[in-house]
Amino acid sequence: MGISSISERNMREMIQAFPELLRTVKIDDRIIERAERESEKGLKGVCFLGMGGSSIAGEYVRSLLSETSPVPLISVRDYSIPRHVDKDWVVIAVSYSGNTEETLSAYREARKRSCTIFSVTTGGELKRVSDTSYVQLIPSGLQPRAALPMLLSVTLNLTQSFLGLDHTDFNEVSRQVALSKKEWVGNLMSPETLASKLNDSVPVFFAHGHLAPVAYRAKCQINENAKYTALSWEIPEANHNEIEASASYKRFSFLPIFLESHFENKRMDQRFSATRAILSSANGLVLKIGSRDRLEEMLSLTLYLDTVSLELADLNGVDSLSVDKISELKARLGG
Amino acid sequence: MGISSISERNMREMIQAFPELLRTVKIDDRIIERAERESEKGLKGVCFLGMGGSSIAGEYVRSLLSETSPVPLISVRDYSIPRHVDKDWVVIAVSYSGNTEETLSAYREARKRSCTIFSVTTGGELKRVSDTSYVQLIPSGLQPRAALPMLLSVTLNLTQSFLGLDHTDFNEVSRQVALSKKEWVGNLMSPETLASKLNDSVPVFFAHGHLAPVAYRAKCQINENAKYTALSWEIPEANHNEIEASASYKRFSFLPIFLESHFENKRMDQRFSATRAILSSANGLVLKIGSRDRLEEMLSLTLYLDTVSLELADLNGVDSLSVDKISELKARLGG
Repeated sequence: MGISSISERNMREMIQAFPELLRTVKIDDRIIERAERESEKGLKGVCFLGMGGSSIAGEYVRSLLSETSPVPLISVRDYSIPRHVDKDWVVIAVSYSGNTEETLSAYREARKRSCTIFSVTTGGELKRVSDTSYVQLIPSGLQPRAALPMLLSVTLNLTQSFLGLDHTDFNEVSRQVALSKKEWVGNLMSPETLASKLNDSVPVFFAHGHLAPVAYRAKCQINENAKYTALSWEIPEANHNEIEASASYKRFSFLPIFLESHFENKRMDQRFSATRAILSSANGLVLKIGSRDRLEEMLSLTLYLDTVSLELADLNGVDSLSVDKISELKARLGG
Repeated sequence: MGISSISERNMREMIQAFPELLRTVKIDDRIIERAERESEKGLKGVCFLGMGGSSIAGEYVRSLLSETSPVPLISVRDYSIPRHVDKDWVVIAVSYSGNTEETLSAYREARKRSCTIFSVTTGGELKRVSDTSYVQLIPSGLQPRAALPMLLSVTLNLTQSFLGLDHTDFNEVSRQVALSKKEWVGNLMSPETLASKLNDSVPVFFAHGHLAPVAYRAKCQINENAKYTALSWEIPEANHNEIEASASYKRFSFLPIFLESHFENKRMDQRFSATRAILSSANGLVLKIGSRDRLEEMLSLTLYLDTVSLELADLNGVDSLSVDKISELKARLGG
């Protein structure tokens, strides 16, 4: 299915296209060339700008590359960038619409500091202000949150170029993530079943490392698609505070959901197992999906949980597409 | 009140001592000297290690200094440090007990990479493994979460030395934070009143910038002292997802609490006001406290919200001191 065949009014089609969207964008050669030039020049760090659905790609890249990158990878979800980001930093500004107020403000600051800035957008103001040789355009017509696969493939490959690393082959990743749907029948429960299990509860996602941004993504998708509350916390930090709150989980219908990985060491597995035991009265669920590496694990779980958020919207008779409150906020701010 | 007069079994006394604890620790001269030497040598960045109550100090320092620091300030709440942290980074390892497993593991990694490491602790394994000229000892006998004022004064002043900045005078800060209790009667409602307002609801704290870690601290204190759920989200990021969840706030008894600052620009004030308007059906509360600067604003609000967490514990007949689940987790992990 090409992106042109996805209806602008149908969130289910957008999420079904997730695997295909991973291989939709081919980054322009001249942009790759410029990204590789940064690696040759040497850079102090990479700073990701973006809000909401457009910030998730940067979070995924950071968690994937923190053990590899010789320079800091930071993300900014605000109007301004930290003082230490200077001309030797590379910035990736991600805004699907190209009109995100905070991202444009941070972009202008980065400009003033003479950072090298790459933009990833469908157009809008961000395209207008960016140097044309540094803008990777991506297809429009989706909700920003459904564009994650496109934003991620571009952001990861660009960052790999900055760092002199080989590019991930997203054709292959796309194929594997499509195949992961088989797990929904075997290892996992169906998205409909999980949605009905968590309906009338507040889902509380627990995850570590590369799955922590997947937990946050799940929270956001449940918020935006189902107009429904959800939380995400990181282990081991949550072991030092949140587990004490579990005494009130039943009182407030909180349901723990553990996103567990096949790529953790034994100590972290023990930690999850101990946390589950301590929270056992809350009848938590474990989600663990088969995959060949961490990136595919992240994306397969994301596709699954994106689908769960749709089913939850359906169960509650909610339109998964519209985000009226976010639109109202922008209107109130005159943006 | 000196720390020796605080009962080890009384969380209320520990929290009442908050202002005094801000000026309890005098950093050793030789440690200041070594910290200043780092500034002269030049450093690539500062990395804070710590978990739970011992990680909050680093978060406060990062949010305070991000607009000033010429180098990245990062925090690690995990077993390992990012690859890019090398011998030119300065590390501050904070563990009140000195026996936090994750912090000790990250400490050992930093050691292997030949980072300069300062430790802040009461003793334990962290004291044992640290170079004596680089350990700032602090008085024991408190719960780690009640030691925040001591951990913060040391961490902030050390970081100021690393960066060649003047030291904050914590005698003066202590005086101002003690005076801020007057606001509890005037501008704010009493901690008892707020606790009874939020009892039977799930408090959802919203904050920006330097007040974001204060919101997270409030969540943790409510978890640990009252064994009660609480959430914290950052604005503007929450404007892109969480506000859509407010459609279900009534269904799940979520109560928004906005921590607002006297030190924000007009645009951020507008954002808070628009967010409040959109969430108005959830009957949210605003907390805003008078103070002379951002640090005092943070600490005055922290003292207030720490006290609220105690009152909430009392209302629910809960022992605010014990953290049985955290202890059980450590026992299960054999730590």
